Amino acid sequence: MVDVDRQDAVVVGVDFGTLSGRAVVVRVADGAELGSAVHEYRHGVMDRTLTAHENEVLPPDWALQVPGDYLEVLRVAVPAAVRAAGVRPADVVGVGTDFTACTMVPVRADGTPLSELPALAGRPHAYVKLWKHHAAQGQADRINDLAGDRGEPWIDRYGGSISAEWEFAKGLQVLEEDPEVYAAMDRWVEAADWIVWQLTGRYVRNACTAGYKGIYQDGAYPDRSFLAALNPDFADFVTDKLAQEIGQLGHAAGGLTTEAAGWTGLPVGTAVAVGNVDAHVTAPAANAVEPGQMVAIMGTSTCHVVNGARAAEVPGMCGVVRGGIVEGFWGYEAGQSGVGDIFGWYVDNQVPESYAVEARARGIGVHELLTEKAAAQQVGGHGLVALDWHSGNRSVLVDHELSGLVVGLTLTTRPEDVYRALLEATAFGTRTIVETFGAAGVPVSELVVAGGLLKNTFLMQMYADVTRLPLSTIVSEQGPALGSAIHAAVAAGYYPDVRTAARSMGRRVVAAYTPDEDAALAYDALYAEYTALHDHFGRGGNDVMHRLKKIRREALAARPREPGTARPPELRTAREAAPGTGRGARTAGAHA
Amino acid sequence: MVDVDRQDAVVVGVDFGTLSGRAVVVRVADGAELGSAVHEYRHGVMDRTLTAHENEVLPPDWALQVPGDYLEVLRVAVPAAVRAAGVRPADVVGVGTDFTACTMVPVRADGTPLSELPALAGRPHAYVKLWKHHAAQGQADRINDLAGDRGEPWIDRYGGSISAEWEFAKGLQVLEEDPEVYAAMDRWVEAADWIVWQLTGRYVRNACTAGYKGIYQDGAYPDRSFLAALNPDFADFVTDKLAQEIGQLGHAAGGLTTEAAGWTGLPVGTAVAVGNVDAHVTAPAANAVEPGQMVAIMGTSTCHVVNGARAAEVPGMCGVVRGGIVEGFWGYEAGQSGVGDIFGWYVDNQVPESYAVEARARGIGVHELLTEKAAAQQVGGHGLVALDWHSGNRSVLVDHELSGLVVGLTLTTRPEDVYRALLEATAFGTRTIVETFGAAGVPVSELVVAGGLLKNTFLMQMYADVTRLPLSTIVSEQGPALGSAIHAAVAAGYYPDVRTAARSMGRRVVAAYTPDEDAALAYDALYAEYTALHDHFGRGGNDVMHRLKKIRREALAARPREPGTARPPELRTAREAAPGTGRGARTAGAHA
Repeated sequence: MVDVDRQDAVVVGVDFGTLSGRAVVVRVADGAELGSAVHEYRHGVMDRTLTAHENEVLPPDWALQVPGDYLEVLRVAVPAAVRAAGVRPADVVGVGTDFTACTMVPVRADGTPLSELPALAGRPHAYVKLWKHHAAQGQADRINDLAGDRGEPWIDRYGGSISAEWEFAKGLQVLEEDPEVYAAMDRWVEAADWIVWQLTGRYVRNACTAGYKGIYQDGAYPDRSFLAALNPDFADFVTDKLAQEIGQLGHAAGGLTTEAAGWTGLPVGTAVAVGNVDAHVTAPAANAVEPGQMVAIMGTSTCHVVNGARAAEVPGMCGVVRGGIVEGFWGYEAGQSGVGDIFGWYVDNQVPESYAVEARARGIGVHELLTEKAAAQQVGGHGLVALDWHSGNRSVLVDHELSGLVVGLTLTTRPEDVYRALLEATAFGTRTIVETFGAAGVPVSELVVAGGLLKNTFLMQMYADVTRLPLSTIVSEQGPALGSAIHAAVAAGYYPDVRTAARSMGRRVVAAYTPDEDAALAYDALYAEYTALHDHFGRGGNDVMHRLKKIRREALAARPREPGTARPPELRTAREAAPGTGRGARTAGAHA
Repeated sequence: MVDVDRQDAVVVGVDFGTLSGRAVVVRVADGAELGSAVHEYRHGVMDRTLTAHENEVLPPDWALQVPGDYLEVLRVAVPAAVRAAGVRPADVVGVGTDFTACTMVPVRADGTPLSELPALAGRPHAYVKLWKHHAAQGQADRINDLAGDRGEPWIDRYGGSISAEWEFAKGLQVLEEDPEVYAAMDRWVEAADWIVWQLTGRYVRNACTAGYKGIYQDGAYPDRSFLAALNPDFADFVTDKLAQEIGQLGHAAGGLTTEAAGWTGLPVGTAVAVGNVDAHVTAPAANAVEPGQMVAIMGTSTCHVVNGARAAEVPGMCGVVRGGIVEGFWGYEAGQSGVGDIFGWYVDNQVPESYAVEARARGIGVHELLTEKAAAQQVGGHGLVALDWHSGNRSVLVDHELSGLVVGLTLTTRPEDVYRALLEATAFGTRTIVETFGAAGVPVSELVVAGGLLKNTFLMQMYADVTRLPLSTIVSEQGPALGSAIHAAVAAGYYPDVRTAARSMGRRVVAAYTPDEDAALAYDALYAEYTALHDHFGRGGNDVMHRLKKIRREALAARPREPGTARPPELRTAREAAPGTGRGARTAGAHA
């Protein structure tokens, strides 16, 4: 324990999201959130043009960022949060950070981003590859195929396949598409670690992303022969670009440098925690780090994290990493690639004008209106089942070529019916994950929800009913930043470990929702239908979804048309008859 | 040939639709349509309350009409059409009619509808059961099960099952639900024949509905032992209520009575053709009565009629009747139970406000807007396949418990994508019917389209591409009435038969659309996916659609709720946490 009055000590948690960074000042003693501030990244996400340099057009599926934008969060949001909290900078005893992942920064040996070198500023591969940069799918496929062929043991730690979002696929893409940038890249660094490097002057690789995104298992990365088989020039990727000292979560990476102290307005030497990931820090923020507590961060997509006492191979999980969530446990991660964004797509594309008008007249949102109407139904009253694969399936099928399905449509199907079926489909997707974990020896006894969707009380009750689990909800609205603050408190020595800190600083409403047995029974029947469709379309019974994606790609590549400009040629061959009426009226054409 | 100047002779065709009757005056020589008039039925369709009598509430799935409404069409629309045509009533040499079917009128021996008897005016079963009265499904199921068990030969003439819409199911419903009405009912008459009875004073049963709807095959109805096995009191249904002289299509049933001449303003004794059905008379109106010419009347649903030289058993057809379309051929009928109404449902329920706004700004309809956007796509560019079963499947699966499906949805799916997939699904449904007929020995070589949907040129080209058939379009916008007029001309002796009359009076644009081979090839790939889904969900691979309908019925029966009035009980059990921010803010609840 550190010799400071615990009632005054505060920490700063900084959450680096996709579009902005948020700083929160938190009291060490009890986790009270005293003030916060948000700063948006100047360049946002560059996914169509390289706005940081002459608006060069980017290929499809790219998503880049500018490292300097992250530093602005330190300069702007951190001091603003401290001011908002009304605390003295001297009371700040630690800083913790979390980041999107896998988000990768190519840097020189001293940490300078390649995109800041004038010679490379026009090269897209010199920029940060954001987590949702999806242009390395070809590389990921080859990695997975080769790992399967060679029987690489590490692949089972990732449910059987690694993602195109992760370090190796993105790194291989740099090599193969811009070897000069690859050659100039001394280190290939998680943004989560790069920001800590900037704060402390030390490059420490956090155990979380090293394991989940960097294929670091049992003290080793994929070996040289595997990498050489992928591409001879990739053989030394690990030793040249990736390998680095590993830091455990909650440990101190170092203290604030003079420069970083200047940015943040905090004392030089303030403890800085090892880097971390947004989803994973949320578990302690909800005080839900014990085995059996599955934390679901539900937003546009859902990320599930849960600790287990032992290592198990769960089919279709995203990964299992020793100490990946907290030290001492095996941290498991799973995910649903589309949740809130499916609901949003539906509202934007499939809800009629009359509903928009009704919602406006009542001063509520369309989501609220649909939820209200859906909530008035009996379970099964809509006669529908949907598959929630509009954005592919992350767990447990790990197949991004899958797509959404709705079955049971009739002429009496209403907008709220399909909306409810989509809500249910995501709940069934979560149940599928929970059951798969249980069957693999990682039982789940409590579902803990964080993220924006917890505001939908109808959805929360549905998840409790469908999973038959008590459903708890995080109290903080700034879960990741609070989680980072908890790590800061541990790094500063105020708590012996994250589990202990979480008990004082993290908070959830325990069993805010409990399963209703009647509803649960009714959902069982629909879940059985979901499972049958899930297995038929997801496990090879009918690969129509894969074929449709292929057909679509070929069609789009063949002959692009702009709506309204070109009439399809088939229309030009049609002779249109304008039937006449009235005395003796006749139309042109070959009549018979 | 009759001794009248053919250039002056005209006939009147009267088409009795679901909501109104339309009379058209047509020149015998060449089929020119000289004038028309429409009259709406005063009572329309009574499907919620018996508006003709004290607004008594009707059960679900009922659909009744008032016979007197049909007579008003004769009194109003026929004289108005003659006036509009500018012809002298004396020039009218014949009257022909067509009707919805199977639409049944319970009458006394003299033709008086039971609903006009004061003692029975309050009894719903005393009214006309419109074609879409669907409350006799239980009776139809029993008829089909029994016919299957007994191996009744006639069931194969109906693709393996008869419909709840037809004469026997509806008649058995009357017996079992209101035996007094059944006892008072001397005759159970197709409206198509009842109207001719009113015009001529003679009850002649037309060969078309007797065959398609009355199970009259090879000169016989289902036998007494079959009927007795259904219900002992039903044993004499045929002899007591149904059997009657059969009239061939295009023959004269008689001449206008003095009373009917008074209603219509036409000469006493004017020839009146045997009754007929709207879909079937359309074939001669398009001059498409030769074998191989499949006429598709495309509106809210699609009815297909095609002549064959021989009797064949086509799986899933609605029926095959000797002389059912024209004398001398075997007339085949098939159908798609949802087409235009699926598109209409989609526009009403699944198209967003922005599209409605855009359509209004451009002064076009939403259907046109969606069609335009869809037409700009490559085949397969949407990545979707749908099943067109929102209203069940009539042919070739004959299963009204099936429902609609859309597969391939992604977060980039746009409203026009699903719209196009639905259009395509109906085209694939037609191709399935065409191929099933061909495989059963009834080849189709030309698709002839009538009905409201032929205005959609994009849809027409799609049907040509998908079926790889030349697609012709009827010229008349009043096909059924023109077809009835053709029958009137034959009945009046101006042509020896309907085939000959059709060549002079019927008209279509031959091959208005021809298949585009590139598009046809691309559609083949989607059709293969449609077929796989069709067979999986329609032939027992996964009976999820049946189970969802059952679940839905049970859910709706269990505990009806009105939207907005009752909050679902699961919501009331939820404890909602309102997370606080700011110094020391805390929320109520069981925090941990």
